[in-house]
Amino acid sequence: MKIEIMPVGEVVVKGGNYFLKIKPEYVVAMQKLEGFSHLQIFWWCHHNDNPAARKKVSCQTPYEAAPEDIGVFATRSPMRPNPIALTAVKVLDINHEKGLIKVYYIDAENGTPIIDIKPYHPCCDRIKNVSVPQWCSTWPQWYEDSATFDWDSVFRF
Amino acid sequence: MKIEIMPVGEVVVKGGNYFLKIKPEYVVAMQKLEGFSHLQIFWWCHHNDNPAARKKVSCQTPYEAAPEDIGVFATRSPMRPNPIALTAVKVLDINHEKGLIKVYYIDAENGTPIIDIKPYHPCCDRIKNVSVPQWCSTWPQWYEDSATFDWDSVFRF
Repeated sequence: MKIEIMPVGEVVVKGGNYFLKIKPEYVVAMQKLEGFSHLQIFWWCHHNDNPAARKKVSCQTPYEAAPEDIGVFATRSPMRPNPIALTAVKVLDINHEKGLIKVYYIDAENGTPIIDIKPYHPCCDRIKNVSVPQWCSTWPQWYEDSATFDWDSVFRF
Repeated sequence: MKIEIMPVGEVVVKGGNYFLKIKPEYVVAMQKLEGFSHLQIFWWCHHNDNPAARKKVSCQTPYEAAPEDIGVFATRSPMRPNPIALTAVKVLDINHEKGLIKVYYIDAENGTPIIDIKPYHPCCDRIKNVSVPQWCSTWPQWYEDSATFDWDSVFRF
């Protein structure tokens, strides 16, 4: 069974600003996005859409405390069987005329294909009682705290 | 640009229990999943993988207070250009030998293709200061509260 998907837009990084540029045929799908402070962005790790990266089932992480060899389903690595990435983004502005959603930040480079957008709903996305393995238990407990966390302190190099 | 993805497993619902059954070639990718209380499950809405459903850019929702016509990117509707669904699940048990992850619940039926699994990380998935539009502002503010919420009270019918 093979599944076909297609980009609905792309990431635009310009002058230190981050935008989601939606293709004209999907701009109507942006209607009523207003009011959602955050969106779930599904994007395609196009640099890793190759047979070698898609055969990866385990990897080494850049984190000092992490296990030597870790299954890719236990990581957010872009090298995985289906290189889909998920990033929650904070919405700054929505321009329906131009098909542009300005966001605070997204960890994807200019030209990255976007494959889906969904609203971030606390009732299905925000978990109160959550735990993670020991090796990443010192990481921030909230999305907002990631920006100021000293990630260098947990990196292997 | 067309993108090809393939299932890495499927949902198994059996005797009131919910499992993610991983294909043998991807079982190694489950290594070191232990310790993550919750996972992000990406699944394929196979019943909506048809040209009519994938042309949908707006829809009507079943919620009484929702706008009449709403863009699909502002909904979690399975009828959308790329019918990918995302569900955070609570892990109950992991069986590497059988390639099975037992979860508390998933809103996908028996035989649904799974296309990716990622760990739920509070630092990127759990947002403290989040807001939603007025029409869904009475919905639960936490994942855990969804199970006991009276969803009938917000449905149109």
